[in-house]
Amino acid sequence: MIQYPSGKRIRNQENKPATSSGRGMALEEDINATNAYYLSYDIANIHKKPTPIQVVNVDYPARNRAKITEAYYRQSSTTDYNGVYKGRAIDFEAKETRAKTSFPLASLHQHQIKHLESVDQHGAIAFVIIRFTLLDETYVVFAKELLSFLKTTTRKSIPLTWIKDNGHEVKSTYTTPCHYLEVLDKFIKESL
Amino acid sequence: MIQYPSGKRIRNQENKPATSSGRGMALEEDINATNAYYLSYDIANIHKKPTPIQVVNVDYPARNRAKITEAYYRQSSTTDYNGVYKGRAIDFEAKETRAKTSFPLASLHQHQIKHLESVDQHGAIAFVIIRFTLLDETYVVFAKELLSFLKTTTRKSIPLTWIKDNGHEVKSTYTTPCHYLEVLDKFIKESL
Repeated sequence: MIQYPSGKRIRNQENKPATSSGRGMALEEDINATNAYYLSYDIANIHKKPTPIQVVNVDYPARNRAKITEAYYRQSSTTDYNGVYKGRAIDFEAKETRAKTSFPLASLHQHQIKHLESVDQHGAIAFVIIRFTLLDETYVVFAKELLSFLKTTTRKSIPLTWIKDNGHEVKSTYTTPCHYLEVLDKFIKESL
Repeated sequence: MIQYPSGKRIRNQENKPATSSGRGMALEEDINATNAYYLSYDIANIHKKPTPIQVVNVDYPARNRAKITEAYYRQSSTTDYNGVYKGRAIDFEAKETRAKTSFPLASLHQHQIKHLESVDQHGAIAFVIIRFTLLDETYVVFAKELLSFLKTTTRKSIPLTWIKDNGHEVKSTYTTPCHYLEVLDKFIKESL
């Protein structure tokens, strides 16, 4: 990260992440930082779940902690993030794309969509956060809207125009680089 | 598992896990089986979070999937289970003990207690499931009761008598070997 003489990071000057392009983890980092802020100010308790790993072999070297020597990544059966906010269960998946005009559906797995549908039916606030990395635009798309769209299309991607119409743009601030709860606040008010 | 000529498992005959003694994972297995039942019958969507593992080294053998060759278990900053039931966020930790008269508090980590307090304040139904393996008794203790107890004591364990008075015994059935939602149903009714 380039430090300008003022000590400010570039992103802070525009309230947008100028360096996120090309880094697959940028959105995850932004969400984690945002969740840490929410937690530390007692706004919400939302966490990323650990990546599921299948452990095959573990060594127990004397006087050392257990060392995993063979393991493999497993596919998660749920979404990556969940928690609680204002008494509501929160559940979402986060995806970023380098595409500029649509979000490729291949990056949303069928089991994730099924999970979002299930938690939505059980009363959670379920959604996907989609970031268009090269456009520096991030949206919340609620599960209900997403599922309606998926049921009426055979497309392999969601047009950005549809996302602009049916999703909700997420603002970025210095302390909350992916401030998705602001979108949810509006949603919670409307649904009460 | 011994199969009797009838094909029934022992535990099925008494609706109690006869083989849980001495196996540290029995409670986890029972909760996982129960959650799978809840999920398949669309009763609730509650999952165990993956164990957090810090990956240090990964090999990418040609034509094979990524193989993790060095990794370590990390301590979780949250509880093990969460999800959604009847619109409410659910969050809990599960512990079993071989003690017969009290539950040793050493097995509940400070960060787990802090997490339970936090999600409870945000409106989740937060609790601990405690199983006395040798007694074959399992209890739900809600975070509010647990935290009140912890604030007024310097004890290093919770007496079973206190748990019997302030907790709620969990029934075991063949399909739901740790049927904790039955306890929650009563709680949800009372709190509305």
